[in-house]
Amino acid sequence: MESYMEMLASHAKSAAAEAARLGTSDKNRGLLTVADELIAQQEIILEENEKDLKAARAKKMKQSMIDRLALSEKRIADMAEGLRQIASLEDPIGEVLYMKTRPNGLRIGQKRVPLGVVGIIYESRPNVTADAFGLCFKTGNAVILRGGSDAIHSNQAIVRTIKAGLRKERLSQDMVVLVEDTSREAVNAMMKMHGMIDVLIPRGGAGLIANVVENSTVPVIETGTGNCHVYVDADADIRMAADIIENAKTQRLGVCNACESLVIHGDIASEALPVITAKLKKHDVEIRGDERARAICEEIIPASDEDWGTEYLDAIISVKIVDSIDEAIAHINRYNTGHSESIITESYANALKFQDEIDAAAVYVNASTRFTDGFEFGFGAEIGISTQKLHARGPMGLEALTTTKYIIFGNGQIRK
Amino acid sequence: MESYMEMLASHAKSAAAEAARLGTSDKNRGLLTVADELIAQQEIILEENEKDLKAARAKKMKQSMIDRLALSEKRIADMAEGLRQIASLEDPIGEVLYMKTRPNGLRIGQKRVPLGVVGIIYESRPNVTADAFGLCFKTGNAVILRGGSDAIHSNQAIVRTIKAGLRKERLSQDMVVLVEDTSREAVNAMMKMHGMIDVLIPRGGAGLIANVVENSTVPVIETGTGNCHVYVDADADIRMAADIIENAKTQRLGVCNACESLVIHGDIASEALPVITAKLKKHDVEIRGDERARAICEEIIPASDEDWGTEYLDAIISVKIVDSIDEAIAHINRYNTGHSESIITESYANALKFQDEIDAAAVYVNASTRFTDGFEFGFGAEIGISTQKLHARGPMGLEALTTTKYIIFGNGQIRK
Repeated sequence: MESYMEMLASHAKSAAAEAARLGTSDKNRGLLTVADELIAQQEIILEENEKDLKAARAKKMKQSMIDRLALSEKRIADMAEGLRQIASLEDPIGEVLYMKTRPNGLRIGQKRVPLGVVGIIYESRPNVTADAFGLCFKTGNAVILRGGSDAIHSNQAIVRTIKAGLRKERLSQDMVVLVEDTSREAVNAMMKMHGMIDVLIPRGGAGLIANVVENSTVPVIETGTGNCHVYVDADADIRMAADIIENAKTQRLGVCNACESLVIHGDIASEALPVITAKLKKHDVEIRGDERARAICEEIIPASDEDWGTEYLDAIISVKIVDSIDEAIAHINRYNTGHSESIITESYANALKFQDEIDAAAVYVNASTRFTDGFEFGFGAEIGISTQKLHARGPMGLEALTTTKYIIFGNGQIRK
Repeated sequence: MESYMEMLASHAKSAAAEAARLGTSDKNRGLLTVADELIAQQEIILEENEKDLKAARAKKMKQSMIDRLALSEKRIADMAEGLRQIASLEDPIGEVLYMKTRPNGLRIGQKRVPLGVVGIIYESRPNVTADAFGLCFKTGNAVILRGGSDAIHSNQAIVRTIKAGLRKERLSQDMVVLVEDTSREAVNAMMKMHGMIDVLIPRGGAGLIANVVENSTVPVIETGTGNCHVYVDADADIRMAADIIENAKTQRLGVCNACESLVIHGDIASEALPVITAKLKKHDVEIRGDERARAICEEIIPASDEDWGTEYLDAIISVKIVDSIDEAIAHINRYNTGHSESIITESYANALKFQDEIDAAAVYVNASTRFTDGFEFGFGAEIGISTQKLHARGPMGLEALTTTKYIIFGNGQIRK
């Protein structure tokens, strides 16, 4: 297994050196040709996808999972359109962030360069395959893709199509490498390839991410899990609070930036909670609360301590009543996953306090947590949402797939 | 052991929340008070250091290691002066890197904030203790220090002194936490504290760093190992090449930015190598070369394949002759550790090619690799030199001890 993965990684590493040398127009041409190729090959891709779907149905996969796995002409067109959009984005590679001349005459600059080989470990969504390739290719990286076994035929077909597009442009086909061995051993080997793979980005559920964080010797960017809170301050506009909570909880249930827990100031709870509860009940959201919340609204069922730390990804929300903004901040900092948190308030001081003291990638005042997203933030693309603090935090656009290099121009300087 | 480390980390985590709220002037006052306290307590610190030195001599520690361990009035004054310099640096915390208004009216900004709890694992140099505290404190972080067992009395005395300074300024003493248990189990427990410690920075030899990279679930910034090359191109100014190589190899032997290996173009080797060899021999440097190098200079002894990948940190250098710049780049990219590489050339095209294609934190043209250093780069301070690509690459100043947070100001926005 190690030798299989080493072979794949060494192919990717050679291709990465070529990718790093490509100019922006070469990369954009490659992306557009691959996009065309996806459309041209859509019948074959759909046939292969059908094999995965058949296997999924045979093993009685949940319908929501089958929906994620299923491709259609529309989804393939969206994949192609995604690549065209990536082509239209500004290329971050080669930008010199600054250059200064030191007293000894050395000119020292910092330049943005590709990471090298990016590894993506993901689950059953085959559209990630084209998307991850596009983002990595635009940033001059080679990518090693390890998708879930449920999507293997779809992924093979998509990667073959990408390679066909690269071949047409006389580019190395190893700029995208698919790990076709979908065993756990392959993932384990991939996680130990420190020095061969420059970064691993797990995209998927909490179990997948925890496994990679626990076992990888390759640097990891943690993505995704979001136990996001909305805090309704004593000074909140109750109608605004209810609208934002309805949106943050119900606009899409299974996403990491959905709201999973409410924290409400005691001074406003008896007035606000019935309004909020009514909104949520229209969407059949189950509400689990502490005793004080339940004393206000009888449709609220009891929350256990476990609820405070749970990312439901479902039509469930928890509610806690607090007596101060400090108690709210302490509660959120204890249970959040560093993703997105929002305060609803008309108080200037509390808005700033919440933003200063909450420890999360995105801290909102008077807005829905659902905006934590590369497109909504205006990055034009997203490789995931980092919930860690190193390298990238929050929605990751193209820059998160780059590093820097110091470039130093001298004329014979030696150190005294 | 887990519970001991968890207690330390939870103290540090509480202190980190306080540290993050401190203003620049509070932090600077704290640094200056601690600096004064180090001077005031120097007798006690030297007494405790003497215990470590006695134990080191008793177990026949190498003299170079004893030199690293030894404190003196001068060294303590330097530690204090280091803290005063950190106080004089600009505070990176709170800077808003940008703020834009989105079409829906959301104002989205990115703000520089502390990492939280920084863990430093290091060996026997007690001056790292004050230095690491100073850099972490200035950036609003709490720091957990785990120094080597050889320096435990010195580290305890220094940390007690720092805490005394913090106490005088009514600041939490837990902003610096020393792991007084110097067993391997304590390091192992520290490396597994994902979620409690935000980043681990190992400072020391290759074995220490490899152990942390291999076993840590906490994100790591790799520092230090440098198998640095100087490449003498066919178009080099030979005198400049010889001066730079002499400096890069001999100005200080045991440092990560010292040159460990030469690569010389065959067209210039017979003229250049004798000049370079003569310079190095004045400093008693042992030269190990391939057959072509040995055919030119008989004082060169044979290099084995292992030499190409060895960071000597000693008066030894390897020499390889190549036939093209491409061969030089391929050789360096195969054996380097991503630290510092230099080309000596008068060729414009080759200077740019080398800078583009060499994969390292710092790539020089016509200058000594010895400049890779936070002070030489003008950062005013250095917590280490990162040889990885994520988060920070090359010399790390204060900014490497920070992360960012998205701050979003709305007035009721919900996602459509």
